[in-house]
Amino acid sequence: MDVVVNAATSVDGKLSSRERRQVAISGEADFDRVDALRADSDAVAVGVGTVLADDPSLTVKADDRVADRESRGEPGQPARVVVDSRARTPPDAAVVDDRARTYVLATEDAPGDRRARLTSETTEVVAVPAGDDGRVDLAAALAALEARGVDSVMVEGGGELVFSLFEAGLVDELSVYVGSMVVGGRDAPTLADGDGFTTPDFVDLSLRDVTRVDDGVLLEYDVVDTPEDR
Amino acid sequence: MDVVVNAATSVDGKLSSRERRQVAISGEADFDRVDALRADSDAVAVGVGTVLADDPSLTVKADDRVADRESRGEPGQPARVVVDSRARTPPDAAVVDDRARTYVLATEDAPGDRRARLTSETTEVVAVPAGDDGRVDLAAALAALEARGVDSVMVEGGGELVFSLFEAGLVDELSVYVGSMVVGGRDAPTLADGDGFTTPDFVDLSLRDVTRVDDGVLLEYDVVDTPEDR
Ligand SMILES: NC(=O)c1ccc[n+]([C@@H]2O[C@H](COP(=O)([O-])OP(=O)(O)OC[C@H]3O[C@@H](n4cnc5c(N)ncnc54)[C@H](OP(=O)(O)O)[C@@H]3O)[C@@H](O)[C@H]2O)c1
Ligand SMILES: NC(=O)c1ccc[n+]([C@@H]2O[C@H](COP(=O)([O-])OP(=O)(O)OC[C@H]3O[C@@H](n4cnc5c(N)ncnc54)[C@H](OP(=O)(O)O)[C@@H]3O)[C@@H](O)[C@H]2O)c1
Repeated sequence: MDVVVNAATSVDGKLSSRERRQVAISGEADFDRVDALRADSDAVAVGVGTVLADDPSLTVKADDRVADRESRGEPGQPARVVVDSRARTPPDAAVVDDRARTYVLATEDAPGDRRARLTSETTEVVAVPAGDDGRVDLAAALAALEARGVDSVMVEGGGELVFSLFEAGLVDELSVYVGSMVVGGRDAPTLADGDGFTTPDFVDLSLRDVTRVDDGVLLEYDVVDTPEDR
Repeated sequence: MDVVVNAATSVDGKLSSRERRQVAISGEADFDRVDALRADSDAVAVGVGTVLADDPSLTVKADDRVADRESRGEPGQPARVVVDSRARTPPDAAVVDDRARTYVLATEDAPGDRRARLTSETTEVVAVPAGDDGRVDLAAALAALEARGVDSVMVEGGGELVFSLFEAGLVDELSVYVGSMVVGGRDAPTLADGDGFTTPDFVDLSLRDVTRVDDGVLLEYDVVDTPEDR
């Protein structure tokens, strides 16, 4: 499984403000790049924290990209994935509308009524084993997606999910659009939250490309190794 | 007063790990750039949090830069500044050794015995008014430095001091070396901590230069405006 993390941050690493309110970090050119990345992926994933905060639709916006996918014999829209241990995704969330296939990855302990309410013609609630912390075991989650024909996933955040993926050694590439702004806040979400790594065992990246985009800069990395690999 | 903030962060905006232990983020070329920046400044400043965590000396390392400063009629070393409301800087901290002039900026309420213990031939404890939060009022702090002949200050962190400087609208330039690593941690210090700004009132920067340095990238910004200016 090919896992690419993509996000937009302020210069101080924040995904949003301390109120967890969505921040317009990137501009048109970056939106277009993200749209292309989505169109190139079998699935687009976020954590349930992002669904609850931002209610994103995670769909490909450009009609020609949708048409290109269809002409390759793929569904017009990539699948959408929510990592959501207790099936807290609201049934009226944009991510579970009927515009694309959606997998809500919940643990086996998620309440049955919530699972039932989310299940529809386009949305499957997938039962995934829980890790020691009671949350979705991410290696098992990726295996469940692979079993459904998903070979590449683009992860759009947030910081809790991104950290866990790095911690489990599951990320292949990282791209970050750094907007020219300071958001601040010791409690504001950052690109990688979670418990954090401890000195000196960090994720080692290799900087592949640096490109000015809109008023900011796009940093593209390959993951060299993670504490989990050592 | 010319205020330049300079720091090294991971891709996720962290200044250090969740244990607040110093992280080797940058390499030799960036150390040399920072040394040159120090040599070009009248003073180099940090918050007391950084003194307690890292015990930095904040001196210029290259002999030729020290000699250059002297040949310009300046002290060989720039002054060192600790923003330290209650004079908590340990008397045996490297930043108050006799290698350079040091100003400990404390509030008028800092205990007299701590001030007395820090005072020496090279260290002055400067009494600065407190802001509403009981901490050093930063505009008054910069005025006190100006009164001592300091016209340019390079601020090396940490995230609490940096946020407060942005909040008070006192920063002119920001340079950030982004190391190719992920540190993670919702409690790890970031480039700008404090309470944080609220949507949509952020600090607006203009990206002046992007340069690959060592294995990472140096981002240099001018401050366009801050919520305080609006
Ligand atoms: N700028 C950007 O590019 C961008 C992108 C995305 C999000 N954001 C911002 O990020 C914030 C949300 O981020 P977030 O970190 O709070 O939420 P998140 O990472 O989207 O979701 C975290 C949640 O996922 C669930 N989860 C299930 N298994 C997990 C596992 N193994 N590891 C980690 N999480 C797991 C957990 O909830 P359960 O325990 O209930 O399962 C966890 O609380 C919002 O403020 C949003 O605006 C910004
Ligand atoms: N990577 C880098 O470039 C770099 C550079 C520097 C530091 N660091 C890391 O950053 C961490 C320390 O950062 P930090 O944020 O904890 O500490 P900090 O910003 O260095 O110092 C914060 C302290 O300064 C004092 N202060 C006085 N007046 C203030 C004001 N108006 N606003 C804000 N602070 C004021 C406060 O203590 P009082 O209330 O007692 O005065 C406050 O707790 C360490 O882990 C260190 O390793 C990394």
